[in-house]
Amino acid sequence: MIRVDLHTQEVFPVEEFYPLRRKCAAHIVEMTYLAGCGHPGGSLSTLDFLLVALSCMRHDPKRPGWRERDRLFISHGHISPGVYSALGAYGYFSLEEAVVQFRKANSPFGGHVEWSVPGVEWNTGNLGQGLSAAVASALAGRIHKLEFRTVVCMGDGEQQKGQISEAARFARKYRLNNLVAFVDVNGLQIGGETEKIMPLNLPSLWQAFGWNVLELEDGHHPQHLYKAFRQAYLHQTPTPEAPTVILAKTIMGKGVSFMENQAKFHGTAPSKEQAIQALQELNQPNRLETLETNRKELGTLPLSLHKDHTFLEPPQIEVGAPMLYPAQTLTDCRSAYGRALEDLAKRNNREKIKIVGFTCDLEGSVKMNAFHKTSLEAFFEGGIQEHNTAALAGRLSKEGLVVFFSTFGVFAGSEVYNQQRLNDFNRTNLKVVATHCGLDVGEDGPTHQCIDFIGLFSNLFSFSIFFPADPNQCDHIIRYIAGHKGNFFVGMGRSKLPIVLKENGEPYFDLDYRFQPGKADRLRNGDEGAILAFGPVVHQAIQARERLLEKGKKIQVLNFASLKPIDEAAVREAAKTGAILVVEDHHVETGLGAKVAQILGKSGLSCKLQCLGVNHYGSSGKPKELYKTFGLDSEGIFQAWQKFF
Amino acid sequence: MIRVDLHTQEVFPVEEFYPLRRKCAAHIVEMTYLAGCGHPGGSLSTLDFLLVALSCMRHDPKRPGWRERDRLFISHGHISPGVYSALGAYGYFSLEEAVVQFRKANSPFGGHVEWSVPGVEWNTGNLGQGLSAAVASALAGRIHKLEFRTVVCMGDGEQQKGQISEAARFARKYRLNNLVAFVDVNGLQIGGETEKIMPLNLPSLWQAFGWNVLELEDGHHPQHLYKAFRQAYLHQTPTPEAPTVILAKTIMGKGVSFMENQAKFHGTAPSKEQAIQALQELNQPNRLETLETNRKELGTLPLSLHKDHTFLEPPQIEVGAPMLYPAQTLTDCRSAYGRALEDLAKRNNREKIKIVGFTCDLEGSVKMNAFHKTSLEAFFEGGIQEHNTAALAGRLSKEGLVVFFSTFGVFAGSEVYNQQRLNDFNRTNLKVVATHCGLDVGEDGPTHQCIDFIGLFSNLFSFSIFFPADPNQCDHIIRYIAGHKGNFFVGMGRSKLPIVLKENGEPYFDLDYRFQPGKADRLRNGDEGAILAFGPVVHQAIQARERLLEKGKKIQVLNFASLKPIDEAAVREAAKTGAILVVEDHHVETGLGAKVAQILGKSGLSCKLQCLGVNHYGSSGKPKELYKTFGLDSEGIFQAWQKFF
Repeated sequence: MIRVDLHTQEVFPVEEFYPLRRKCAAHIVEMTYLAGCGHPGGSLSTLDFLLVALSCMRHDPKRPGWRERDRLFISHGHISPGVYSALGAYGYFSLEEAVVQFRKANSPFGGHVEWSVPGVEWNTGNLGQGLSAAVASALAGRIHKLEFRTVVCMGDGEQQKGQISEAARFARKYRLNNLVAFVDVNGLQIGGETEKIMPLNLPSLWQAFGWNVLELEDGHHPQHLYKAFRQAYLHQTPTPEAPTVILAKTIMGKGVSFMENQAKFHGTAPSKEQAIQALQELNQPNRLETLETNRKELGTLPLSLHKDHTFLEPPQIEVGAPMLYPAQTLTDCRSAYGRALEDLAKRNNREKIKIVGFTCDLEGSVKMNAFHKTSLEAFFEGGIQEHNTAALAGRLSKEGLVVFFSTFGVFAGSEVYNQQRLNDFNRTNLKVVATHCGLDVGEDGPTHQCIDFIGLFSNLFSFSIFFPADPNQCDHIIRYIAGHKGNFFVGMGRSKLPIVLKENGEPYFDLDYRFQPGKADRLRNGDEGAILAFGPVVHQAIQARERLLEKGKKIQVLNFASLKPIDEAAVREAAKTGAILVVEDHHVETGLGAKVAQILGKSGLSCKLQCLGVNHYGSSGKPKELYKTFGLDSEGIFQAWQKFF
Repeated sequence: MIRVDLHTQEVFPVEEFYPLRRKCAAHIVEMTYLAGCGHPGGSLSTLDFLLVALSCMRHDPKRPGWRERDRLFISHGHISPGVYSALGAYGYFSLEEAVVQFRKANSPFGGHVEWSVPGVEWNTGNLGQGLSAAVASALAGRIHKLEFRTVVCMGDGEQQKGQISEAARFARKYRLNNLVAFVDVNGLQIGGETEKIMPLNLPSLWQAFGWNVLELEDGHHPQHLYKAFRQAYLHQTPTPEAPTVILAKTIMGKGVSFMENQAKFHGTAPSKEQAIQALQELNQPNRLETLETNRKELGTLPLSLHKDHTFLEPPQIEVGAPMLYPAQTLTDCRSAYGRALEDLAKRNNREKIKIVGFTCDLEGSVKMNAFHKTSLEAFFEGGIQEHNTAALAGRLSKEGLVVFFSTFGVFAGSEVYNQQRLNDFNRTNLKVVATHCGLDVGEDGPTHQCIDFIGLFSNLFSFSIFFPADPNQCDHIIRYIAGHKGNFFVGMGRSKLPIVLKENGEPYFDLDYRFQPGKADRLRNGDEGAILAFGPVVHQAIQARERLLEKGKKIQVLNFASLKPIDEAAVREAAKTGAILVVEDHHVETGLGAKVAQILGKSGLSCKLQCLGVNHYGSSGKPKELYKTFGLDSEGIFQAWQKFF
């Protein structure tokens, strides 16, 4: 371990560096040999920077979650052997454990870096996404008025990925000069030379982004690395208000002769002979047989080794009292969301920022304007850059903030599904509120119709899916998610909706109502069948039910504002009526109907089931026209009931 | 309509231009007024370029699908009023129809441009994706050795989107100088000034991409536009082998005084008074009342108006005879895919290219090497740029080619879900073959485990989902998709699999076997229960069945290689045994088990059902270890059966 004070020292203790470097390089060889797989090449080309950065960053291996630590992100997550070696050498954990557990089932020391390893901030592995997380960390420093720096390492291959451009632009826009990026330019990716796979002029590109660009001819020389890093860290750059990128030429596999400049060793482990030769070259002892025995003796590891070391708990939120929209109100859930968010901001963001909001050029459409005005410093415009914004918002939600991310459904889900997936297993605390869901988007047409949000978010283990039936329920749900930890997707349409009423004409979702995940609302009673619905079609269902009542049929109407978790008991109860009609403004095979069928299928209950929903792509058109076309209006529901039951 | 021969004419007939321009501008006003919504601002800022381009491009309004036409793509699809006005003026369709049908339900004249309109090549609307489609078109020209040019219009707001960087790099790498891009730099997006929303140095950025950059101070001046377009078209540029971008400063709402430079008119229609004023300013007759009447009289439009005008049928493919992997073979489906693809290339790509392959820096891992070697000119390396590659491959599949896109499951599905969605309603003909699906990915860990492909692709109406149980079935499936039109997702794991055998020890999927979508394979008979599975767990299921047989239980084993469409009859038949156990290397709630439950739920059949699958994110680890952890190996299946039934 080397410790350097970059505020006072200009010279790096190079003589101490090389023995440490060789030791870490040996661990990289050991790990990958033992696992029989892994990525030694990039590990050895980034290693020097990692060791130099860790020598002078502000961090404490005993407190990986220290709020004021400088944060280190690894975007090319496959260089995990290099990262584990370096962090282990700095005392974050037992190097011995890391070496023998590397890539073993249930071990925290995964093939791509994982947050379960102390010192690792964020799971990466899908390339091009680490910069967004690092940008979030730099932004967290600004929001919390903390002085820490954020450092991110990237590969040169992943520079091809568009999301990096988005993240770089965001960082420059918000003048995040507390961010230092390092690009390991070893010139190779899995497929061969980066210049052949996809040519890229890195200096020009980063200059176009408006960053400070420092180029290093030898990205292994500790003094050169230190000098550049110090310059960036201390803002001794041409544009001090801009972030800085260090583009460092390196050699893949550096320090192990047969690995050097060999694309093969991007992702190939050394054989035993090769490992022995490498250890000799590195002048390190050959402990391979002992390590092999130790690895074998591990047996099956428990999953309990996965602990999160850096999650900053969200602040306590005062959720306030619900707003009541009276019976005759006609407004959209978007506006109810906007008002609730404004109220939350007023209550919680007065002294310091607790609630943060993001959108992607749709502030007005998603009704974040009032929040923006109320919390000037807490609102961030991500531009038409959804991939970056989703990832950034996700990471920020682990930094002691309640983060709302709002855009249209197709952009909050379909377009950034993988970013949400990565957020999900990074155990974020993100509130995704998506407007313009379903066919209810105005006349924008099929590209803008998000008819798959249940199908998508059902794949993500920690995400709940909610969808209010009217503005009153929307207000309740927004306050609920603001006050509860976890990942939530809240969908809503675009149109104005009538208030859902009790049979006595008063608002159903009144001040006494409490939103509960996994609980359906029985809006109307009846024992001759049940209509199950959510969202804008709920009031159509109620109207259809009235017409059926006139025909002497008493049907119950259930509202499923909580789609995940879902109220299985309510479905089973409804099945007792013998006839269930599901109505939804969603893909008919992947939404509520599918979930209801699953519950019936698993419970073995026998009940007639029919589903109405979106069974082909919609066209442009007013939602009312489209609902008619798809048979989702009260007339369509009424006719369907008559036909099927 | 103006026609100019750019090979001979240096001067544009400006005097003919302005009357045409005013007429089209008036149609923009009419359309948006009539619909009460739409995007007049950008329509008016791009209009001049559209009219100039159409005046000198090689195209024939009577033959929108003419193979040798120059192709025009619109990336900022919301400027549909401008596009419809211009195409209508050039005789692609009745302008009258376009004006009165604009944004009406089921009309082809949607809110964002759609292929159902003659002259429109590709549905866009989600920004930043049109360039990828245009790049595909330029590539198609190269592959087919046709001289046509591809022209693409983009907005300046969408330049923020990372996918544009990816597409620009790909175009430069492959020297697609048959591509001309136009950026309408009106300086405004929905949220306000682009410079405030997300600052971007466009000239530097495009120079960094290595493109020719032509800047225009007045993007409305027909002579200036013509000169730049001609230069780009005729390769009279500093780097003739590179594509060219024209960055043109324009005025949003140009020509209508109260719309000029008003961000509000990005997406707001004029009121009646405003429309009347605009028509006066444009010196055009006020036909609003007649048009209103005509629109009202349209009634409900039929869906049949949606015809595809540009789809080029895929070539006839000689699929050859299946390869037989004998009973004792141990190989992976990836390799079987690679061999089948190589064989298809040898049979079909000899004289001219019929089958094209794409990957994203994973050529070796997805086993495309042999195809690459066999078809040097038909293999394209997309780099670590999945978004661009998925969109590009999709468009290319409508250009008379059979297109295979292969990468890991998380990159072919999760990461590019929205690109596949856009492909889907663009009615592409894409063969997505994804390796590394499920937990069966080696030790790369959760970021690389694609456990949601059924959940994802079930949302896409036209995509089929197949998953072979062994290399023999894989060979059959690959030949099947090569020979059939449509979008297919074929998943497979990474590991070597034993051959699935009949009870007599011979390969089940032999030369007589025929793969049929929607048909399950009954691998083993039995009437005391059924195990339903697909993919790598199939042989685990067979082993478990043997052990159960030893205990006196005769269970049938069904293989669902076709997951969408699914064999509902086989499920219902299995239900007659009274007990179904589903086993899958997939998210347990969104895969085969969910589909089986749905079928049971909808059929009202009563049958005990249990599902084994992936119920939390996996860790790094050998697939064998992971299957054990998740209870998906033969032991786990055997135990589960004993426990539940």
